[in-house]
Amino acid sequence: MYSDIHRSVEDLLKAHGKPEREVYFDLENSGLILPEALEAMVKAYGEIGIGHPSITHRKGWESYEALYKSSSTIARFIGCKPENIVYTHSGTEANNLAILGSAKGSKSGKRKIVVSSIEHLSVVFPAESLQQYGFKIVKIPVDSEGFLDLDILEKVIDKETLMVSIAPVNHEIGVIQYMDAIVDIVRDGCEDIVIHIDACDTLGRVAVDLGKLDIDLASFSSHKVYGPKGAGILYVKDGIQLEPIIYGQLSTQKLWPGVENIPSIVGFAKAVEIVCSTMDAYTQHMARLRDKLIDNIVGSVDGAILNGPKGSKRSPDNINISFLHCEGEALTVELSLRGVYVSSGSACTSRVLEPSHVLLAIGRRFEEAHGSILMKLHPMHTDSDIEYTLKHIIEAVSRIRSISPSRHV
Amino acid sequence: MYSDIHRSVEDLLKAHGKPEREVYFDLENSGLILPEALEAMVKAYGEIGIGHPSITHRKGWESYEALYKSSSTIARFIGCKPENIVYTHSGTEANNLAILGSAKGSKSGKRKIVVSSIEHLSVVFPAESLQQYGFKIVKIPVDSEGFLDLDILEKVIDKETLMVSIAPVNHEIGVIQYMDAIVDIVRDGCEDIVIHIDACDTLGRVAVDLGKLDIDLASFSSHKVYGPKGAGILYVKDGIQLEPIIYGQLSTQKLWPGVENIPSIVGFAKAVEIVCSTMDAYTQHMARLRDKLIDNIVGSVDGAILNGPKGSKRSPDNINISFLHCEGEALTVELSLRGVYVSSGSACTSRVLEPSHVLLAIGRRFEEAHGSILMKLHPMHTDSDIEYTLKHIIEAVSRIRSISPSRHV
Repeated sequence: MYSDIHRSVEDLLKAHGKPEREVYFDLENSGLILPEALEAMVKAYGEIGIGHPSITHRKGWESYEALYKSSSTIARFIGCKPENIVYTHSGTEANNLAILGSAKGSKSGKRKIVVSSIEHLSVVFPAESLQQYGFKIVKIPVDSEGFLDLDILEKVIDKETLMVSIAPVNHEIGVIQYMDAIVDIVRDGCEDIVIHIDACDTLGRVAVDLGKLDIDLASFSSHKVYGPKGAGILYVKDGIQLEPIIYGQLSTQKLWPGVENIPSIVGFAKAVEIVCSTMDAYTQHMARLRDKLIDNIVGSVDGAILNGPKGSKRSPDNINISFLHCEGEALTVELSLRGVYVSSGSACTSRVLEPSHVLLAIGRRFEEAHGSILMKLHPMHTDSDIEYTLKHIIEAVSRIRSISPSRHV
Repeated sequence: MYSDIHRSVEDLLKAHGKPEREVYFDLENSGLILPEALEAMVKAYGEIGIGHPSITHRKGWESYEALYKSSSTIARFIGCKPENIVYTHSGTEANNLAILGSAKGSKSGKRKIVVSSIEHLSVVFPAESLQQYGFKIVKIPVDSEGFLDLDILEKVIDKETLMVSIAPVNHEIGVIQYMDAIVDIVRDGCEDIVIHIDACDTLGRVAVDLGKLDIDLASFSSHKVYGPKGAGILYVKDGIQLEPIIYGQLSTQKLWPGVENIPSIVGFAKAVEIVCSTMDAYTQHMARLRDKLIDNIVGSVDGAILNGPKGSKRSPDNINISFLHCEGEALTVELSLRGVYVSSGSACTSRVLEPSHVLLAIGRRFEEAHGSILMKLHPMHTDSDIEYTLKHIIEAVSRIRSISPSRHV
């Protein structure tokens, strides 16, 4: 099967000439690294990346310094202490450690795990995997814009609840939850519930202050803040009981074995520093481009529906639009031919297309979920990128509809 | 605690002037990246690293091409098909997937896991973690050079045996096991036993041909072949039942969720290509330097004992020596002051020193295990590096012994 896929991919690339211009919006799946973050990582490979931070020699101490400095930088911008940071290799691993590690570490015997119906699959799937051990997973519904139903949350939270996991900013539809209200409801319901936030899409979009928000665990991903791949973080509040989920030689941290990927971590810290210290300016810039693209698409393309809320309730980088009578996969390919790279609204799991569970949860019908595209803005996108994209989305949707068998449905 | 350690590390670095020359041998814990592998990774970040290999647009297809090409390169050198390769982020993760994934995937109800007494902790600890679920772990002893006791192996293997995990080359003492004999004994004992090899220290040292060796699972690590950090591999033979151990969005592979770290994988493949295609030349070079250093140390330092076998039975890069009446940690620090960076023979777990279980398993006494250093050679080490190192080891051991309270013991 692998070889067959490979041949078709090779043919596609051959048939697919170089477009006049390229605009990349598929930041959900893979990032555009900041040049400064790449430079910091490469420098670390040359200077200190050879070391191991828990070894009794100079290179080890230098690595330890680099690790500590990186943790201090990140800690300063997210409002915690460096020692609360556990490095994994991705946001997916951090979410798994949060969910599975809490279940393993729990001494209370509590078996209820509460998530929203629009969480990332790296939260949903680990939680569901625990059902075989007697855990009960409750998914709180959301409204048509993706906001959590707080009344249902209040009813669900009880003394049997082990943990609650909610993303402050949703990865697909950009809805910014009322986190303070959510935390208050959970804490009022029962004091010793572990609250986890998947903050991979929050950092750099909306201010994160773990010193103020009363939560216990938080996941972050380097590539989502335009840092290198290979680094994620789980913030673990002092005193939270968590067990490791994989095992081996420990370096400086107890919850994820193996030598830390110091060069990626150094690049991650550089990206956090840049993104968080200039956040106001570039989130305003991105929000302006976002609204320009959304308003123009919805205003000029029939049957274009925004998924998720508008304006300040929405992450500044997020654009997610369903096009009625327009198959999303065909649209991503047509846009690719024009040099516009977007995510399909369908989750591609092992190359089997399934409609996004997030879009279904906000009430989109199956065909609306399939006919959607997700675009994420980058601080370096320009007005000219948006104008180029707008022109090609209008043309591409029109072309797909003209050749689609479902256009009259 | 983290802050206290940080202050002491800062003080150490300040007190610690720059040595006249630096020679790095702590390749067990962290690598020296090949310039070509670093270049390939950086190029991937610029050209195709932004993509996701399972997305329906040009950047995704380009990423898929890069991933497939990398897998094909590595597969060619280890003797398998590209589709047998599962990427993780480290050898530790690959070993965990092998052990825990086999236990989870097993439908047979068999509960015995057999390892050697000198396996890496990322094999030993996952296996031991399964004891709470009723699995029985049997550790086969080794002789004074580290060779597995084949008679005991033969007696232990039975119909209750789920899997056997043995490293063809040991990470600490470099012993090269008689793998063909081990595989024959296991297969003769019971046909459907899963055989895993932790080949992280084998690749690039001893030829690996998975087309000939009848095993089911094999772990590899990028940094151990002088590639970038953030990439490991588990080879999974067709038909082997394995369950994932962490969960989330799948990209091109079913056993480790999340988007593949394409740039690190591209660098890994480049490192494998270089290392495996020039292996004869540089392993001969390393073996010559290894023997020169071992023979000179053992010949000129009283109470210096080689750990592990000599000559062709030993990995060409591995030097492990115990110095009687010489505390290993003190020796690593003294050598560091002289610019010679080595691993201590003590496993440093959360900064608590414990004697190496490998050295204890070959019969070293507690104080011998503590007084040992591990050095791994790199293809770029030179005769001059060895001469500099020899001079400083002789001086450093003498100095440590002169100030050690146990020198007359």
